[in-house]
Amino acid sequence: MNNKVYAGIDLGGTKILAVILNEQGEILKKSETSTNAHEGSEPVIRRMIELIKSCLEPSQQLASIGVATAGTLNAEEGIVAYASNLGWNQVPLGKLLGQEFGVPVNLENDANAAAYGEWAVGAGRGTKNCVYVTVSTGIGAGLISAGKLIRGRDSSAGELGHITIDLNGPRCLCGNVGCLELYASGTAIGRRAQQLVAEFPEKAALLTEKAGGNPITSRHVAEAAALGDELSVGVLRDAGQALGNGLVSLIHMMNPEVIVLGGGASSIGAPLLEPMNEAIADRGIGSMRSNVKIVSPLLGKEAGAIGAALLVAD
Amino acid sequence: MNNKVYAGIDLGGTKILAVILNEQGEILKKSETSTNAHEGSEPVIRRMIELIKSCLEPSQQLASIGVATAGTLNAEEGIVAYASNLGWNQVPLGKLLGQEFGVPVNLENDANAAAYGEWAVGAGRGTKNCVYVTVSTGIGAGLISAGKLIRGRDSSAGELGHITIDLNGPRCLCGNVGCLELYASGTAIGRRAQQLVAEFPEKAALLTEKAGGNPITSRHVAEAAALGDELSVGVLRDAGQALGNGLVSLIHMMNPEVIVLGGGASSIGAPLLEPMNEAIADRGIGSMRSNVKIVSPLLGKEAGAIGAALLVAD
Repeated sequence: MNNKVYAGIDLGGTKILAVILNEQGEILKKSETSTNAHEGSEPVIRRMIELIKSCLEPSQQLASIGVATAGTLNAEEGIVAYASNLGWNQVPLGKLLGQEFGVPVNLENDANAAAYGEWAVGAGRGTKNCVYVTVSTGIGAGLISAGKLIRGRDSSAGELGHITIDLNGPRCLCGNVGCLELYASGTAIGRRAQQLVAEFPEKAALLTEKAGGNPITSRHVAEAAALGDELSVGVLRDAGQALGNGLVSLIHMMNPEVIVLGGGASSIGAPLLEPMNEAIADRGIGSMRSNVKIVSPLLGKEAGAIGAALLVAD
Repeated sequence: MNNKVYAGIDLGGTKILAVILNEQGEILKKSETSTNAHEGSEPVIRRMIELIKSCLEPSQQLASIGVATAGTLNAEEGIVAYASNLGWNQVPLGKLLGQEFGVPVNLENDANAAAYGEWAVGAGRGTKNCVYVTVSTGIGAGLISAGKLIRGRDSSAGELGHITIDLNGPRCLCGNVGCLELYASGTAIGRRAQQLVAEFPEKAALLTEKAGGNPITSRHVAEAAALGDELSVGVLRDAGQALGNGLVSLIHMMNPEVIVLGGGASSIGAPLLEPMNEAIADRGIGSMRSNVKIVSPLLGKEAGAIGAALLVAD
């Protein structure tokens, strides 16, 4: 009996997450362990190997391994060229896993892998043209066109957070000016609220209370906005409009059927998403924005590992 | 002897251009005729059929027909849904050509077809990730990723002219605000020069002379700039910077190896392209902008027909 399974790993700075999928893309097993990146790459890879082995049943035949990870990859050679969260430099991860298991190994940028997972078996399932957008500390996107992941030259395509939305805006750390993520990321929301609290302390009572002496974050802003706090509602309205405008540019460039909107954005809810949707309705080209579904992700934290597994399996 | 050939048609509002390619993508024959769109779709299609027949040798075996055209297409059904330049509504062009020649027919957006042609056998040859940008009346792009044309849901992907570069900018006819083509298209260059001529008539002597009483166009601005006219140089510098910023967003989204820059932009030359390149160097993410080649198209006016032919052949 054919009992092929596909392993997917999400290699993060804190945890290593493994999933085992069957040929239908269903999760048969998942497990995680600490990365302990400070120990260096060899022990980390050893733990990754043990984790995969612990997930496999004797009757199962491992067909491939996909690894999702942050950092700069040389995917063709299976090398993690540079990963700051792991402290890795030129680690031949693909070769080492391939030697151990004797199966094809594929490395993929973690955002791309999550996008592919959501497209293939999550919120984008059944579409051909799908964009996955995460709004958290920064803003990133994974692009799927005609069922293929768009990687670009260095697997860096989809830097949605670093498209300019304001030519006269401030300089971003990336070097560009007026980047979308300066206006609409979680970081931007917290920073803008902090500025307004300093400027208008008389309007900042609730937000100051939520923060309890700590720097204000987007979570505090979301909590205060949910209680009707005017300042917080205003901050989220501005961020939502900016996000909407960034998504208009995305829609005009990629002509997607569906946008899967992940990260913290969807959990903030209406105070961010309503102005976002208004901006899209107001500013998108009618034929391109109409019928674009904007949906929440379905796969949770396993999206990257699932996508990595499916990218090799496909 | 196998003597397969591939027909490509560029169906424009003024002219119909046909090319016959061999299996290597080389042009064996090209020919054109007037569209005379006012006569209605039947005579136009009849002329298209005659044009193709007139290009074929008896020894050649036609394998497929690709048609590049403007307008909204239903490519899967081979229908030109709406083309304002032809006055066409729901014309089943693919079916009619297929019945006549008994071969597969594919319709493609003309900008996408030109992009594919330049990528496959023109200035983007040998790369995998290539973007074709035209700067003329408007600004458009065709996107190739991993050797595949990115079409999106309705073959409308690549509306680069309608990404926002200034959130606080004016409203575009498309509905969006601060669109790239409001700042960097040929139309924008002419309009901006016209405004400045009205505002600073004392600086407008050369430009006014070039225009000779007609509305100022980007061609007049380019001519005056080539002679060192300060006002014109300034207009092109602003447009070039805006174009550069739009290309930074494009580079961050698509991570291309090469940008083929066509339309009038490349013929304007240094006064537009130097500020464009400076903006890219100043604002692009280092690892993504470095080694992106910006080149001129090679295929001339046949790009669309060639690309349409190759898209079916491939």
